[in-house]
Amino acid sequence: MCGIVGIVANSHVNQEIFDALTVLQHRGQDAAGMVTSQNGRFFLRKDNGQVRDVFRTRHMKQLVGNIGIGHVRYPTAGSSSSAEAQPFYVNSPYGIALAHNGNLTNTEELAADLFREDLRHLNTSSDSEVLLNILAHELQILHKLKLTPEDLFSAMGQVYKRVRGAYAVVAMITGYGILAFRDPFGIRPLCIGVRETAGKPEYMVASESCALIGGGYKLLRDVKPGEAIFLSEDAQLFSQVCAEHTEYRPCIFEHVYLARPDSIIDGISVYKARLRMGEFLADKVLRERPEHDIDVVIPIPDTSRTAAMQMALKLGVKMREGFVKNRYIGRTFIMPGQKIREKSVRQKLSPIELEFRDRVVMLVDDSIVRGTTSRQIIEMARECGAKKVYIASAAPAIRYPNVYGIDMPAVKELVGHGRTDEEVAEYIGADWLVYQDLGDLIESTAGADTPAIQFDCSVFDGDYVTGDVDEQYFAKLEAARNDGAKFDEELGDNETADMLKRLS
Amino acid sequence: MCGIVGIVANSHVNQEIFDALTVLQHRGQDAAGMVTSQNGRFFLRKDNGQVRDVFRTRHMKQLVGNIGIGHVRYPTAGSSSSAEAQPFYVNSPYGIALAHNGNLTNTEELAADLFREDLRHLNTSSDSEVLLNILAHELQILHKLKLTPEDLFSAMGQVYKRVRGAYAVVAMITGYGILAFRDPFGIRPLCIGVRETAGKPEYMVASESCALIGGGYKLLRDVKPGEAIFLSEDAQLFSQVCAEHTEYRPCIFEHVYLARPDSIIDGISVYKARLRMGEFLADKVLRERPEHDIDVVIPIPDTSRTAAMQMALKLGVKMREGFVKNRYIGRTFIMPGQKIREKSVRQKLSPIELEFRDRVVMLVDDSIVRGTTSRQIIEMARECGAKKVYIASAAPAIRYPNVYGIDMPAVKELVGHGRTDEEVAEYIGADWLVYQDLGDLIESTAGADTPAIQFDCSVFDGDYVTGDVDEQYFAKLEAARNDGAKFDEELGDNETADMLKRLS
Amino acid sequence: MCGIVGIVANSHVNQEIFDALTVLQHRGQDAAGMVTSQNGRFFLRKDNGQVRDVFRTRHMKQLVGNIGIGHVRYPTAGSSSSAEAQPFYVNSPYGIALAHNGNLTNTEELAADLFREDLRHLNTSSDSEVLLNILAHELQILHKLKLTPEDLFSAMGQVYKRVRGAYAVVAMITGYGILAFRDPFGIRPLCIGVRETAGKPEYMVASESCALIGGGYKLLRDVKPGEAIFLSEDAQLFSQVCAEHTEYRPCIFEHVYLARPDSIIDGISVYKARLRMGEFLADKVLRERPEHDIDVVIPIPDTSRTAAMQMALKLGVKMREGFVKNRYIGRTFIMPGQKIREKSVRQKLSPIELEFRDRVVMLVDDSIVRGTTSRQIIEMARECGAKKVYIASAAPAIRYPNVYGIDMPAVKELVGHGRTDEEVAEYIGADWLVYQDLGDLIESTAGADTPAIQFDCSVFDGDYVTGDVDEQYFAKLEAARNDGAKFDEELGDNETADMLKRLS
Amino acid sequence: MCGIVGIVANSHVNQEIFDALTVLQHRGQDAAGMVTSQNGRFFLRKDNGQVRDVFRTRHMKQLVGNIGIGHVRYPTAGSSSSAEAQPFYVNSPYGIALAHNGNLTNTEELAADLFREDLRHLNTSSDSEVLLNILAHELQILHKLKLTPEDLFSAMGQVYKRVRGAYAVVAMITGYGILAFRDPFGIRPLCIGVRETAGKPEYMVASESCALIGGGYKLLRDVKPGEAIFLSEDAQLFSQVCAEHTEYRPCIFEHVYLARPDSIIDGISVYKARLRMGEFLADKVLRERPEHDIDVVIPIPDTSRTAAMQMALKLGVKMREGFVKNRYIGRTFIMPGQKIREKSVRQKLSPIELEFRDRVVMLVDDSIVRGTTSRQIIEMARECGAKKVYIASAAPAIRYPNVYGIDMPAVKELVGHGRTDEEVAEYIGADWLVYQDLGDLIESTAGADTPAIQFDCSVFDGDYVTGDVDEQYFAKLEAARNDGAKFDEELGDNETADMLKRLS
Repeated sequence: MCGIVGIVANSHVNQEIFDALTVLQHRGQDAAGMVTSQNGRFFLRKDNGQVRDVFRTRHMKQLVGNIGIGHVRYPTAGSSSSAEAQPFYVNSPYGIALAHNGNLTNTEELAADLFREDLRHLNTSSDSEVLLNILAHELQILHKLKLTPEDLFSAMGQVYKRVRGAYAVVAMITGYGILAFRDPFGIRPLCIGVRETAGKPEYMVASESCALIGGGYKLLRDVKPGEAIFLSEDAQLFSQVCAEHTEYRPCIFEHVYLARPDSIIDGISVYKARLRMGEFLADKVLRERPEHDIDVVIPIPDTSRTAAMQMALKLGVKMREGFVKNRYIGRTFIMPGQKIREKSVRQKLSPIELEFRDRVVMLVDDSIVRGTTSRQIIEMARECGAKKVYIASAAPAIRYPNVYGIDMPAVKELVGHGRTDEEVAEYIGADWLVYQDLGDLIESTAGADTPAIQFDCSVFDGDYVTGDVDEQYFAKLEAARNDGAKFDEELGDNETADMLKRLS
Repeated sequence: MCGIVGIVANSHVNQEIFDALTVLQHRGQDAAGMVTSQNGRFFLRKDNGQVRDVFRTRHMKQLVGNIGIGHVRYPTAGSSSSAEAQPFYVNSPYGIALAHNGNLTNTEELAADLFREDLRHLNTSSDSEVLLNILAHELQILHKLKLTPEDLFSAMGQVYKRVRGAYAVVAMITGYGILAFRDPFGIRPLCIGVRETAGKPEYMVASESCALIGGGYKLLRDVKPGEAIFLSEDAQLFSQVCAEHTEYRPCIFEHVYLARPDSIIDGISVYKARLRMGEFLADKVLRERPEHDIDVVIPIPDTSRTAAMQMALKLGVKMREGFVKNRYIGRTFIMPGQKIREKSVRQKLSPIELEFRDRVVMLVDDSIVRGTTSRQIIEMARECGAKKVYIASAAPAIRYPNVYGIDMPAVKELVGHGRTDEEVAEYIGADWLVYQDLGDLIESTAGADTPAIQFDCSVFDGDYVTGDVDEQYFAKLEAARNDGAKFDEELGDNETADMLKRLS
Repeated sequence: MCGIVGIVANSHVNQEIFDALTVLQHRGQDAAGMVTSQNGRFFLRKDNGQVRDVFRTRHMKQLVGNIGIGHVRYPTAGSSSSAEAQPFYVNSPYGIALAHNGNLTNTEELAADLFREDLRHLNTSSDSEVLLNILAHELQILHKLKLTPEDLFSAMGQVYKRVRGAYAVVAMITGYGILAFRDPFGIRPLCIGVRETAGKPEYMVASESCALIGGGYKLLRDVKPGEAIFLSEDAQLFSQVCAEHTEYRPCIFEHVYLARPDSIIDGISVYKARLRMGEFLADKVLRERPEHDIDVVIPIPDTSRTAAMQMALKLGVKMREGFVKNRYIGRTFIMPGQKIREKSVRQKLSPIELEFRDRVVMLVDDSIVRGTTSRQIIEMARECGAKKVYIASAAPAIRYPNVYGIDMPAVKELVGHGRTDEEVAEYIGADWLVYQDLGDLIESTAGADTPAIQFDCSVFDGDYVTGDVDEQYFAKLEAARNDGAKFDEELGDNETADMLKRLS
Repeated sequence: MCGIVGIVANSHVNQEIFDALTVLQHRGQDAAGMVTSQNGRFFLRKDNGQVRDVFRTRHMKQLVGNIGIGHVRYPTAGSSSSAEAQPFYVNSPYGIALAHNGNLTNTEELAADLFREDLRHLNTSSDSEVLLNILAHELQILHKLKLTPEDLFSAMGQVYKRVRGAYAVVAMITGYGILAFRDPFGIRPLCIGVRETAGKPEYMVASESCALIGGGYKLLRDVKPGEAIFLSEDAQLFSQVCAEHTEYRPCIFEHVYLARPDSIIDGISVYKARLRMGEFLADKVLRERPEHDIDVVIPIPDTSRTAAMQMALKLGVKMREGFVKNRYIGRTFIMPGQKIREKSVRQKLSPIELEFRDRVVMLVDDSIVRGTTSRQIIEMARECGAKKVYIASAAPAIRYPNVYGIDMPAVKELVGHGRTDEEVAEYIGADWLVYQDLGDLIESTAGADTPAIQFDCSVFDGDYVTGDVDEQYFAKLEAARNDGAKFDEELGDNETADMLKRLS
């Protein structure tokens, strides 16, 4: 997962992009980058680390210009796409910088085409580099000394024909402006906001509306599936749906876990969706065990708190903050001769013993992925003297890999893969496991306001909307994952990205 | 405010001190430091920044030894004691390193004595450097080639006679062990834990029990007012109350705001105390307005959540997470020619509009200091469409300066100073302001378990237990605050601390 | 001025490129860079600073591959081409990295063409970026999926037709090898060396032969004017003169000052040339003042020592080391409120007083540029009690700007510009000034061995061999110099390069 | 070896100390440090690295005050005193910072005394820390609230009684001034200079006069053996010989190799001494082989050039610069799986082949220590085609360890130890080896001007003037050397110093 932002304003945008990236930091803490433009020149800064670490005063001074794009990246080591800090840059044609949230499903084929058609070299295995070069190629073959919005939309039509997968993108073209677009299924989110200073409009596109609001922009609307938005350097907005076939299938996992609760995505309040998830969970509990013996509902902070609160309310049971989350992240130093210590959830969560002692507790989490964290948490609850430990997951069992840009473990590591609910409960040590039903999750999220929207629920139901994800694809994915790990190993440390990112 | 830790173990302590400081990071994010000892040598690393930034692999490799102390520091710029990273060190006698949480009230007098008696130079205006040198002096005049626990306790008797104020301290003496002590009123917290590895005991002293638990130690007990604990290098524990007059007067503000909820301080569960604060607040609401029109209780995250939850329960009103806290801290870059932008609470908190729209909301905060944050939050609530905005403070009005180690603004900046509750309400724009009564706060905290404990409540009632805090002291405090700011200004930037800390 | 190197070997080349750049460090201490290649990927590291500062262990670990190129850059701030660390990189076609020593004289025209023909964006004002894109364009339009040496030479034929000025270049093409070439006049030096390991040849191309020798390579030969050398990844050497019209006109200033004395350039020993310069100087002295009263010959270290030694020998006068050169470079810190102190030659040179006292001294320098250094040195000699101070310059008066890659001050700042020799002598305070005659300099350098070589002597005679350097060009040069300074000023500091270099 | 400086001036001294340390950089490139003082506070910056790397603008801004001291340190890893950056600091009494050039010979005994008498802890094995604490102790027991120059001299009398070995020292006492002193034999150099600004005197003490001259100071005189100089904060100079027994026995090796040629040490011009060394060498050659066949004299740069020049003149033979010294220092990166490459003199020196071809060459070096460098150089000369290779050493054979602060290898590694001159010649592969006779060296250095001065020539004759250096001492030295190496190894890298230096 990643976060992206693009701004066209009436004054320098570096601080605003910095602020927006900070608001979007939850979408990726691994790396950050920004490109601004002034007088036909690009200014770039990107590096591994959080936003506040990557951008220092000396960098900000250089990042001049009223237009720019930014990116935060989630750690995706070992995934099919090697880790690279973004934005990427090519100088031909025009000078284009691009930042991307998502994952392409036909990267290899496109990479081969790029070399064959245009002799374009890809220096990384990042699908974002591929996407940038496809866009570059489609603009190149138009061979226009002056680009119009129509030219851009025409090129985008070709891009949509070729590129498959999930992608929300901001691209900046030297001397023209920012092109923002979203894949034909709108899998990853992208929205646009506007504000006025000194009587002139300023625009921001961003992964989530919370970044718009934080910057004082008003949410104008979401970018539509297959739509391209062009913000010219003089702050005019052009838009056109350029993909031939489009369908509204946003990723439902944004609402379960990824997005900030104060964001509105595709017209849906993430917060409200989570409240309803809690309500549906309570309904299921009451349906399955009308005479349940739950003494207290305890959320596993922070994401599940909203659902837990509503669930407790509906159940008529107290909700309590039984776990304290450690806000400060530690680190394990490997001293010479020492072994790697197991990472423990105990460093992240501390129980308040009195909320567990002699009680039947219903823990609430947003989702259960590997199950190892749940198991440790349940163990902690028991050590604190809980009589029984139940657990509810606001999302159904995760049984399939994500191929649309969310970093998930290999399918074999998913606790829900190949296990019944009962087997999962046993594995994690729960006395009772309540998974949200997929229908309930969809209804929670869709609400009454957005009847037209279906969702990408592939991790739950294995239905991949792009139609090109099959067993062969998964096999390649697994191989790439192994290769990636191997390549990292050969280089002897994890600084690979540090070197590669400077190249393009 | 600061956090301190000391460990005597059977293997290298660097990782454990690192982990403990991470758990105590909420007590200070400004600077961090660690000293370990091996074969009669000290190894030191300290710098400005959070724990994870200050200690890198190259430092950890050097921090060898089975014994060590650590410190995290809260930003106290502009306070009477200049900012210095700790631990401090003197080589005479024995080699002593010391880390301190608190504030001395007779620093100036002690500093003068130190020079007169012992020609000791103080290179900073830090009271911790004074405290270290007083301890050093008292040990020096014993002039023992071999120190016994009795010698240490005898010296501590003298230290207690001379040093006034609030202090919880860990000090490491080369070749001997760790001396930990707490002022005669036990104002700042300090506790001790034990665990066993390979049949041998290991000890940790720390500001809060959450650090012990996080490290796998069992809470043994709190250090008593005026008590000194000596942990020898071979892990024997000696203790003695060395102060002549002692009284149990711990700082009640630890329970209101400073401490982590999962800590047990002086036998009191911080979490439980906060639950009770919420209950008493509900009682006061019901007492003052039995027919109140509150639709929803909304905590201002994170500290007040516990109190708010219980308050809502008792009121029979829904609690809702109306504010999302931004976990990632931004930064404002001052570009050439730009003005400083006002720091805004909006960068830290985002409202969920639907929880405010057309409702009467009761906001809950742990305390109200300057009132500026409350004012902005209330403004945000109104912009989201709240019908009425009430606010409850789990602590009474803060009307007096803190002189015991909590960084508070100048008394003139306290909104509660010289204002009635109604005037405060008006200032912050609240339709109704409910302050906790001091008696209720004390009862919340003391509970039934600890009848013997009174509290230091000086910021609420102006009663300074050390007996040496008067108008003259406040005048000096104010002057020092101004001098500190001026000195910083003269040096032209905020790197002063960076230079000074390397000196001692 | 800059230094370049390229290596194709049978094992990793990073250390060897590092060593070669260190040997070439005298050609540029401002910035350094390296690109290596393995399995179709490039690995890049470049930054401001000396070689030993730019490459740390963590970078070297990443710079894998048996093939690579490197660059060291001389400070050229304020020149027509903005300062950029090299190598530069484009991904289209093939992936090409390029490093360049020299200066193009038709940069602007080429830059305009690049955009018009190929929509290529240039993000800097560096002529090296232009040169890289010209090469890229010429390769692109061949549109070959597989490149042969013939293709490369065919493209180079076009490059030579278009690009004017001085250029010695190494370029690496992903998956193919290293292309090295020298402009049709051979103005800047480039040579090639070979060695064998495990029965297989390895090649190095470098600016000077001292880098070859230092790496254990044997000097094979110089690259010819207008010749391109292709070293394939499997270490085969192909070469072809690709320029239509070529002429041997290497820069004579390499022999006067730039090159290391142990280098052999175009068959000429730099050391031997300098000896002869001293001899010719002695002849001129004897010719002009047969009864001269010189007591001692004193070189201004280090370059002029060789010439001075031979001059003294021929004159039958003692040579003495009257100046000690400070090997360690200081720095002036501008404190708030302070003024910039004048840079003084006294920080670089210290006189040995006794060698001057009551003597007639003949100072020897390699050349006189601004005259300010000479003036200070002569002043120092007088302060030490010299009876008379003469000065000899191994090079004639510098009267014209250099447009072929040597960083010289603006023409107005050249002391020799618009002044007779007597006026220069007066300006610098010398009792007698002996300039080498241009004919003598040429004869010194050419020797008997290389009758075919003429030299570029443009700074002495204003004859610019590329034929495109006229008043209009100088006017543009002056304007660019001013613009460069202004742009730097606007950005507020000298970190511009730091940002830009990361982009391409 | 190290370089020291102290300045009392009428304005901030940070830049001047920086400049002086740069001039003294040849005395130590391993670490640098500076302490300044203002308003009773010390400001310190020290770190490993060269002067220009250790002091950045942010440090210089903090180093305020009109008084300060500085230090540069030579790498002494593996010697008896562990490497530490200086100055050192103690806060009791008064606050004293101290920087030291030399080596104590009774460190262990003093360290034991310090603990026994005063319980002073030494955190390092540095003799400079010992010396500082001895001085501190002697000042402490005077117990004066106000120090007079007489008090200082009285304390210095005690210091001289206790401390044996070689030491030139600058110490700064908070609120008083700078105390500079030299051991009773004046083994290490120290001189004092004065200048006037605005009618008021300013003083600098420094290891060598070149630092004075570089800073615009006039050499006043050398500090006498056993003399202490006190420069008060208001720039008054007090001085007194405080040692009971003094003798003028400066280290002759300063003149052979250590000092800069433009320095005047104890009234002797280093440059002139080196000229005379060359003359005596020529005499010896003519004496031993009146019909010698030497074609050319070639110095091994840079130190021996002065002697070689005079030697050539006296022999009536040409001198030539047959070796080019590489000014830029490389580095060998150890890649995973690689072995350490042998350090080669070839990276530092490149021969000019034509100066060797078919000639009988007389190489000249300042001294021969291990003999490995000489051997490699002679080998290079032969490879260049020299007919015969002779070598002359301006110093006699080094046969004994240095215990007075010069970093020399273990005695077993000295090629002159236990070998006749012929055996050394054979070992290094010379056809003829000419060592300077010790009497000639002394006469070269002493000249006619300084009849009263004898020299410390211990490395040549084994006569240790401090009288406490015997077999037992050498045994301890050897043991400490091994322990030091072992300790470094245990810590796993060479960052030990980095940690320790921050402590005191």
